[in-house]
Parts: sequence; structure tokens; C-alpha cells
Amino acid sequence: MEIMEHKKKFQLERLVLFSDAVFAIAITLLVIELKLPDMTEISNASLANALLHTLPHFMSFFMSFMIIGIYWVAHHRMFYYIIAYDVRLLWLNLFLLFFIVLMPFSSYVYGLYSGLNTAFTLYVFNISMLSFFNYAMYNHISKPERHLSHGLENPRRVNFFKARSWIVPLCFGVGLLSSMVWTSPWGIAISRMSPLLIIPGMKIIRRKFADVSELKSAN
Amino acid sequence: MEIMEHKKKFQLERLVLFSDAVFAIAITLLVIELKLPDMTEISNASLANALLHTLPHFMSFFMSFMIIGIYWVAHHRMFYYIIAYDVRLLWLNLFLLFFIVLMPFSSYVYGLYSGLNTAFTLYVFNISMLSFFNYAMYNHISKPERHLSHGLENPRRVNFFKARSWIVPLCFGVGLLSSMVWTSPWGIAISRMSPLLIIPGMKIIRRKFADVSELKSAN
Amino acid sequence: MEIMEHKKKFQLERLVLFSDAVFAIAITLLVIELKLPDMTEISNASLANALLHTLPHFMSFFMSFMIIGIYWVAHHRMFYYIIAYDVRLLWLNLFLLFFIVLMPFSSYVYGLYSGLNTAFTLYVFNISMLSFFNYAMYNHISKPERHLSHGLENPRRVNFFKARSWIVPLCFGVGLLSSMVWTSPWGIAISRMSPLLIIPGMKIIRRKFADVSELKSAN
Amino acid sequence: MEIMEHKKKFQLERLVLFSDAVFAIAITLLVIELKLPDMTEISNASLANALLHTLPHFMSFFMSFMIIGIYWVAHHRMFYYIIAYDVRLLWLNLFLLFFIVLMPFSSYVYGLYSGLNTAFTLYVFNISMLSFFNYAMYNHISKPERHLSHGLENPRRVNFFKARSWIVPLCFGVGLLSSMVWTSPWGIAISRMSPLLIIPGMKIIRRKFADVSELKSAN
Repeated sequence: MEIMEHKKKFQLERLVLFSDAVFAIAITLLVIELKLPDMTEISNASLANALLHTLPHFMSFFMSFMIIGIYWVAHHRMFYYIIAYDVRLLWLNLFLLFFIVLMPFSSYVYGLYSGLNTAFTLYVFNISMLSFFNYAMYNHISKPERHLSHGLENPRRVNFFKARSWIVPLCFGVGLLSSMVWTSPWGIAISRMSPLLIIPGMKIIRRKFADVSELKSAN
Repeated sequence: MEIMEHKKKFQLERLVLFSDAVFAIAITLLVIELKLPDMTEISNASLANALLHTLPHFMSFFMSFMIIGIYWVAHHRMFYYIIAYDVRLLWLNLFLLFFIVLMPFSSYVYGLYSGLNTAFTLYVFNISMLSFFNYAMYNHISKPERHLSHGLENPRRVNFFKARSWIVPLCFGVGLLSSMVWTSPWGIAISRMSPLLIIPGMKIIRRKFADVSELKSAN
Repeated sequence: MEIMEHKKKFQLERLVLFSDAVFAIAITLLVIELKLPDMTEISNASLANALLHTLPHFMSFFMSFMIIGIYWVAHHRMFYYIIAYDVRLLWLNLFLLFFIVLMPFSSYVYGLYSGLNTAFTLYVFNISMLSFFNYAMYNHISKPERHLSHGLENPRRVNFFKARSWIVPLCFGVGLLSSMVWTSPWGIAISRMSPLLIIPGMKIIRRKFADVSELKSAN
Repeated sequence: MEIMEHKKKFQLERLVLFSDAVFAIAITLLVIELKLPDMTEISNASLANALLHTLPHFMSFFMSFMIIGIYWVAHHRMFYYIIAYDVRLLWLNLFLLFFIVLMPFSSYVYGLYSGLNTAFTLYVFNISMLSFFNYAMYNHISKPERHLSHGLENPRRVNFFKARSWIVPLCFGVGLLSSMVWTSPWGIAISRMSPLLIIPGMKIIRRKFADVSELKSAN
């Protein structure tokens, strides 16, 4: 039945577009955490000062935006390979979305108390769960007997995507560990820069798997 | 007119995507109810304590996320069968969405006062209305004279979906009744676990209707 | 160029889906106005009381949900006829969306002060602007020299949709006028029921234009 | 492989629809900044007074709605030409979206302190970044060796779109400069009207590039 064939394709696209909407809303809700502190007087100087005080929030807002962006790009790329879905994939995807939806909260707590390791632990936990479900989804769709994907026949390519899943939490984890050992204000400040390691980390993995990473392709 | 044929298909898809957007926004807005209580001092211990105090909210947030997820999956499956719509379906769907939109409020009240049966009654009422409109939509689209669906010719399959509609409110209803009879703190705490019954409940129904539930299919 | 043909169709669909997203977000944001008043003690009775106090808010939430729903259905129907767009249609649509986005605010003010005619005037103004742009869009797309629509060749059908545009603000306007003349609490309370006139009003128009309203069609 | 061809097209459409969702949510979240001030007494007069006090917020809400609208229309037009994407385009688009997501915050600060140049500077900065990424995207997709676009072969047309990118920040920049020089209340009030220059500015550019602006086309 041709009509049902079209239906099936649309159902998969609907799963993708629902996920996109959740990503889009979570990434936009981040802005809600940006609030101006109360000002004692209304002047250009005191507003500039108030804006300066929101800088830590702004940094966590920017970082969380980029993190959700990275996972959206990863989700986008993963569904390039997916040609069918089953109930398990539906639920793995829903759990991934759960931790996307949690991001505005984790980001808000982290922006408020960026100096406290408890806040950073919550943040790193949230991100690790994102990676875990990203990994679990690749694991699930790449099983040949499931017939869910197309283009993941080469196990090396699957390993490439699985390895990428762990770069973000790894870099954050290094920062968390370092700030637990090195508890001086400077130690914590430097440890919080660990997400910058993601950029070279991604590059190393891409080079190691250069034969399957399709850097030149449109995807 | 071919152009109008395409239009009609797109109009149905638009109805679906509008619904998806509402589901996605409501599921993401749930996170707004998560708020950190005021802290007397800024330290790792007091933040950990504050996070611990948001645990009931977190639980209601997680539960509501899963409930909306279940109804989205059900909506997703239902529209697999729908091939046309009429004004009545449009409005039944809108009423279903009304109770989806209400979920963040019910969930917020329940998270705030999870020990009070009044809060739980509101929550169970909200969920029951979701099930009611889910049921009403299956009832409407499965009428053969309406020509709205394809693949629901077997009344047993329709009964399967109708039976599934009632599992969620039934399990919650058992918990509500039990907490009205068994009003000790322990009684209430255990009664609130009743949603866990959904998992075996779903399994039982699926087994009873194994011939029409298409467990192996992609949908 | 076939690729550009497909592009053009997708661009029109994108306009529709962007509008749908705005409708979906505005209809879901309405729930934010629902807030529980502070409670002096935590008990089932006082929570029930607090919920009772949110009833006016709940009513305006429900009414605004239905109003946005009606305009979404109208938008949905209008785009069934649209086969191309120009810059003017883009902007008329954007202005319509502006007043959709304003609805949560108008609804919030009305829910807070439903007894004050100033609040009701704001609400009626918002709704009238929705109808005005709905009317202006039908006026624009039905001009045959623009080649924007298909199926609106019969001016009687265009008049049917134009007449429908004015039913909602007309019913609200009657209520506003009546509450300005009849200022006793009872007078205001009864005047506020005027939206219920929409249901018979719609029926009358549909009967008057029975030959072009296509009640039996899927749209 | 035909299935992969369809996939690629869908992946591009998904990028567009994700962007649309972010635009739609940011444009709708603007309404959250509209808040009623506390009222000393509940009467029609005091509510009218309170609404009058929200007028500056309303103006910044309306302006920001139109600005986001303009950039959405520009994004919509740009993707009419785009036929493929690469990782760089994905990230340029994500940065554009970042500044779209920031708009509700900038608009909120500006609505609160519209008289302060610091608030206006933040607003103008936000808008300039939108234009910068809009420009950068046109720059990227129009490079013929990238094969990302179709219809931008004429460099004059690319220049038309690039020139348009700068109209909005230019008009705002004039207002900012003028209010820095002309610091009297009247000077600031008049300087804040500078966005109105956008309308004639757009017209001048369109006339200058009349041969490539396709005013009559559906796009």
C-alpha cells in the first residue's frame, strides 16, 4: 500500500520534527535565566554595572546554548542514517530529550553558583546523560538485525560516532576532577575552562577516524 | 486537481505538526516548575541540600515528562492510521491539546503539594481527560462511514487502542483511591507509587491483544 | 527548473509551519498565567480554596485557548486556498501573528481583572485586530490578479469567510457594550457570557452561506 | 541511492524548520516582558493608568517583534537559494540563532531603561550581530566553489542582500550616535525614533538594485 509507505516516512519525520521542537524550545528557554539584578539607582553606570554582574549567567547561557547546539547537530547527523524506528528508539530518544529539557535548569543553577563544585557536578551529570543516550541510540540503530539504519554498515564509522559521544563529558569531567583537587579560587577558575578542550578533542578524533568521518560531505 | 490533492495531505500534516509543537512546548515548559529554594549561605553543602529539597518537584517533573511522552507516542501512533480529518476531529484534537497545555500547571501544583490528595486529584483529573479525548478520537476515526482512517477496519484493533487509553488513568485512580482510604504518611507515600503499575498494565493489555498489537512492526 | 519549483512550494510550507509554531507557543504560554495564590496553611481544604480562587484565571485561560484555537483553524483553512505568497501576504501574516503573541498578555490582564471594563476592552481590542488581519488576508489573496489562491474564484465564498471573520469580535463587542451600559455586578457577569453567542452566530452564517461553506468536505 | 537523496533534502529542511522554531519561540517569548505594575486600587482608571505605564515596554516589544520578523523574512529568503549545507553553514546559522535567542533579554533591558544609552547600546549590539551573521551566511553560500546555493551566480544580487544586511544596524547606529551627542531628554527621545529610517532605507537599496531585487516575484 503506497499510502501507508508515505505514512511511515512521515511518521519518522514527525519523530524528528518533534525532537527538533524540543531542542529549539530548550535552547530558547535558556534566555529566561538571564535576569538583571536590582539597581539602586537608574543611570548608565549602574546599568553597565548590573550587566557586568550578569556575566557569569551570560557565560553559562552561552556555553549551554553551544552544548545544546552540539547535541542538536549530533542528533541531526544521526537521523541522516536512520531509515526506520521501533518502540525502543522512540523511548531512547525521549530520554535524550528529557535531559535536553533539564538543561535550562542545570544551566540556571550553574550560572547562579558557578564557583561551587556541587553546581558543576549537576551540570556535568546532565551532559553525561546526554552523551550516554546519544551513545545508546547509535548502539541501537547500528545493529544490522534491526534494519533501522542505512550507511552504518562499517563498524569503524559507528565507533567514530560512539567515540565522539564521549568527548564532551570527558572534557567536562577533567574540569570537575581538577576543581575537586585544586580547590583554590584560581584552580576552580582554570578548571571551569575545561570545555574549551572540546575543540581540539573533536579534531583529534576526526583525524583518527579520517577515513570514515566524511569531513568533506555536506553532512 | 492534483495541486489540491497535495494541499489536502499537507493540511493533515500541518494538523499533526501543530499538535507536535504543542506537545513539545508543554513537555519543555515543565522545567519551569523546577526552582531552587532560597539558600541561607552559599556553600557546596547548602546547595546540595537545596537540590535535595527540589526532589519532589523533580519527581513530578520526571513523571509528567513521561506521561506527556506516553500521550505523544499514542498520538503519533493514532495519526499513523488517520488519512483524512473533519471539523469534529480538529476540535477533539484541540481539546486533547488543551489538557496537554494544562499539564505544566497540574504538575506544578502536584510537585508543590504532593502529599495533599487535593493536588493529586487535580493531577489525576488532568490525566483522565487526556485519556478521555484519546479514546474519543479513536472512537471517531474508527467509524467506517467517516472514511477518516486506514488500517482500523478490525474492531479488535480499535478495542486494543481504546483499552490502552484507560491504563494510565486507571493506575493513577487506584493510587488516588488508596490514598483516600489509607491516609497515614506511609499510606500516601506508597499510594503515590501507583503510576509504576502502568508498566505491567501495558504489558498485560499488549499480551491480551497480541494478534492486533503489531509489536514487531516499526510503529 | 524543477528544483526551484520544489523550493517555492517548500517556502510556502515554511511560512505556514512558522505560523503554526507561533500559534502553538502562544496557546501553550497561556498556562503561565495560571498561578496558585499564597496559602496560609498547607491542607487539602486550603488548597481546594486556592484552586477555587484561580477559577477566573482558569476561565480566561480556557476562553483564550479556544479563541486562539478558532483563529488557528481559520488560518489552517485559509492556507488551504493559498498557492503562492508575496511580500504583502508575509507582512499581513506577521501582523496577525503579532496579535496572537499578544494574547497571553491580554488574557493575563483579563483573568486578573475580569470585572473591570478596561481589562475587557483590551481583550476585545486584541481579538478585533486578529479578525481584522484575518479579513485583510482573505481580501488580499482573493484578488484574482494576484494569483495567490485557488478555489476562491466564487466571490460568495470569499464573502462567507469575510463574514466569519467578524463573528468573534461582534459577539465580544456586544458584551463590552452591554457591560458599559449595564454596570451592576450582575450586568457585568451576564455581559461577560457574550462569547457564548459565537456558537449560534457561526451556525447562522454557515446556514446563510450553505452553498459555499462545504460543511461535508474534509476541510 | 534515491533514499539517501531524499534524506539529504530532508536534512536541509530540518535545519530550516529547527531555525524557524527558534525564531518562533524567541518572537513569542517577547510577550513575557510585558508585565502589569502593581496597582494601589482596583478600578478601571487605575488599570488604564497601569496599562499606560507599560507603554515603553509595549513599544520595545512591538519593535523587537518587527526586528525578529525582518530577520525571519531575510532568513526565509536566504534559504530559498540554499540547496546544500556544510558544517560551517550549520554553525554560522547556530550563531545567528544565538543572537535571536538573546533578543528577548536585550528587548527586556531596553524596555525597562529605554532612556539609558547603555540599554540602547546592548540592543544595537544584539541587532548588529544578527546582521553580521546574516552577512556572513550570504558570503559563505555565494562562493561558487562551495556549491551550496542556486540563483546567486550574479554577484550584484549577492551585493544586494549584503547591503540589506546593514540597513537595520545602520539606522539603529545613527540613533545611538545621535543620542550620545544630543543628551537632552528631547534629543534622546528623537534619537530613539531612528528605527523608522529602516523603511525609506530599504526602499532606497531596493531601487538601487532594482534589476536584481525581484520585487515582483513571489519571494
